Amino acid sequence: MAFTFTVQATDPATGARAGILGNARARARTPAFMPVGTQGTVKTLRQSDLRDLDTEILLANTYHLYLRPGPARIRELGGLHKFMGWERLLLTDSGGFQVWSLADLNRVRPEGVQFRSHLDGSLHEFTPELCMEVQLALGSDVVMVLDPCLAYPAERADSAEAVDLTLHWARRSREAFDRLERIPGADPALFGIVQGGVYADLRARCLEGLTEIGFDGYALGGLSVGEPKTAMWEMVEAGMPGMDPGRPRYLMGVGTPEDLVEGVRRGVDLFDCVLPTRNARKGTVFTSRGRLVVKNAVYAADERPLDPGCACYTCRRYSRAYIRHLFQTGEVLGQELASLHSLHFYLETMRRMRDAVVAGRFEPWSRDFLTAYREGWEPA
Amino acid sequence: MAFTFTVQATDPATGARAGILGNARARARTPAFMPVGTQGTVKTLRQSDLRDLDTEILLANTYHLYLRPGPARIRELGGLHKFMGWERLLLTDSGGFQVWSLADLNRVRPEGVQFRSHLDGSLHEFTPELCMEVQLALGSDVVMVLDPCLAYPAERADSAEAVDLTLHWARRSREAFDRLERIPGADPALFGIVQGGVYADLRARCLEGLTEIGFDGYALGGLSVGEPKTAMWEMVEAGMPGMDPGRPRYLMGVGTPEDLVEGVRRGVDLFDCVLPTRNARKGTVFTSRGRLVVKNAVYAADERPLDPGCACYTCRRYSRAYIRHLFQTGEVLGQELASLHSLHFYLETMRRMRDAVVAGRFEPWSRDFLTAYREGWEPA
Repeated sequence: MAFTFTVQATDPATGARAGILGNARARARTPAFMPVGTQGTVKTLRQSDLRDLDTEILLANTYHLYLRPGPARIRELGGLHKFMGWERLLLTDSGGFQVWSLADLNRVRPEGVQFRSHLDGSLHEFTPELCMEVQLALGSDVVMVLDPCLAYPAERADSAEAVDLTLHWARRSREAFDRLERIPGADPALFGIVQGGVYADLRARCLEGLTEIGFDGYALGGLSVGEPKTAMWEMVEAGMPGMDPGRPRYLMGVGTPEDLVEGVRRGVDLFDCVLPTRNARKGTVFTSRGRLVVKNAVYAADERPLDPGCACYTCRRYSRAYIRHLFQTGEVLGQELASLHSLHFYLETMRRMRDAVVAGRFEPWSRDFLTAYREGWEPA
Repeated sequence: MAFTFTVQATDPATGARAGILGNARARARTPAFMPVGTQGTVKTLRQSDLRDLDTEILLANTYHLYLRPGPARIRELGGLHKFMGWERLLLTDSGGFQVWSLADLNRVRPEGVQFRSHLDGSLHEFTPELCMEVQLALGSDVVMVLDPCLAYPAERADSAEAVDLTLHWARRSREAFDRLERIPGADPALFGIVQGGVYADLRARCLEGLTEIGFDGYALGGLSVGEPKTAMWEMVEAGMPGMDPGRPRYLMGVGTPEDLVEGVRRGVDLFDCVLPTRNARKGTVFTSRGRLVVKNAVYAADERPLDPGCACYTCRRYSRAYIRHLFQTGEVLGQELASLHSLHFYLETMRRMRDAVVAGRFEPWSRDFLTAYREGWEPA
């Protein structure tokens, strides 16, 4: 079965929708948040944890896996799913964003983007064709086109030029994707990425060009890179009318729990972000009443779980006091327990949004959620 | 129910025995290996992992918990079992060994041992009385007396003096232990520690003195500190005849899988060691065919599990190639998977030894085990 996406319900009062995407391998209900498994592992967690959290789709990073252990090795070992022990859906990014944010060199030319590995300084070039080849070798379920990244703020002229290059690379990505061989069992989808900075008309032109080429889904890229939140939401709103309602919409690299609600309200189906796991590893978790910096001394004798209303692995077993002790003493278990909790909160929030859409009450649900989220916890 | 220990079977051909120890809280079958949970956590693992591994008794370090979060805090939070979420048995060391091996100062006087915290340089003194107070505040199930540590090699005169101090501290430990209050629900045992370096007669004198004072179990201390293996086993053998056969015998800080077999053969009931977990975190695991340095490049495409005959969490799910990738990229999951495997191997080996003792065939079992252990794996 090839990739499909079905909208199952739309909220009457907002742009929010509930859907399902998938292929012969597996399916994922939307709106969905994708935990980030950069190097073929969601940091500190096991794949069985992710299944226990009911994760239906994960993101992995092409840039990192290209460098180590390399696409040839992963293909030889049967693809990324088999390599990492994950039988559900995997979306892979193109690597373009990591080249831009991590690599020591980032020379964009019409052919592609040259970069030096952040590991050993070796010189590489990502072309649209190579990025397709790598993602297909990994056996990804959702492949992303290579797109050029621009820092915020960017001049209109630079953004316009980037849109031209985005479309040029998107066309080449599409051609290579259609031509190249899949690994056994893979039947991947290809998503295009809308660029255009904070210029709504450039984004509209980009989306039009992408739609003409034709993709299985459309992503909003180049957002959440330092622009004001209002500008980000303006771009999301401006982008929606031109988007094929029968295709999934993916807001890349976003965001906070509040961002997820605001994105779903505007019709976004897919999100990914390192925020819940990265913050957790540094001792800050997300709860139904906002962020909680559990490593703080104020929790040293707090016997409550991270979130007293939460049913996650961590909250059913451990106190803030113990988790604070683990962070205080540098014990990895603290990172694990915090990551488990925050991912549970993110995924549970997505499921509740979906239920609210299906029940036709996304608006009151989101009002209640955001009110509680901004409330904070009583002192112990 | 107070602490009890029962010998259930003795091997006809060796000193090996199978027993059971416990109190009202829980019990542990012996011979037993105690994973080390230094700071109230076995590094990288969850308490549910330890239960899944059928761990029946854990060791925690008094020195570390005394410094952070402190005994008053743990008592206030209901004791170490509740604090860390562990309802089975806990043995706590006295802290003396960590003062000797970790602290910036280690000034032994008749009153106790003065030291500076390795964390902030603050000055402290462990006396036998304080060490009892701390372990009782933690709610330990098996409390260890404070003993002085000597580096190897030590002169006979220094070792003799250390034995005098050992007995002096053991008597004060016993008195304080009997006098001090327990936390609710605790009914701890107190173990004495035999010192005397590599001098069998000094060890005999020490054991005699300890037996006169009377303890619930006897530990062999000051071994595995750099002396040759032959000297260690000589001391273990020399110590056995004087030991009350109705009390558990604990060989502290030992050892490799081969050491466990050699110790059980000589009548040891309890072991603890950081080796399986510490090595695992550095990319070396223990298998039925010896050590395997899984981080080595030779495993980069090896699809076999760490130990093809192993039924642990890791071996049922992951290849050497994937785990090698995790070490190569510095991902914590590698440490978790390796720790899970090596602890499983240690605990499973203990269970198999116990079964062999009960079946009266420890000798042939250990011969087969050691032959396989020294064999190594075929290349992939």
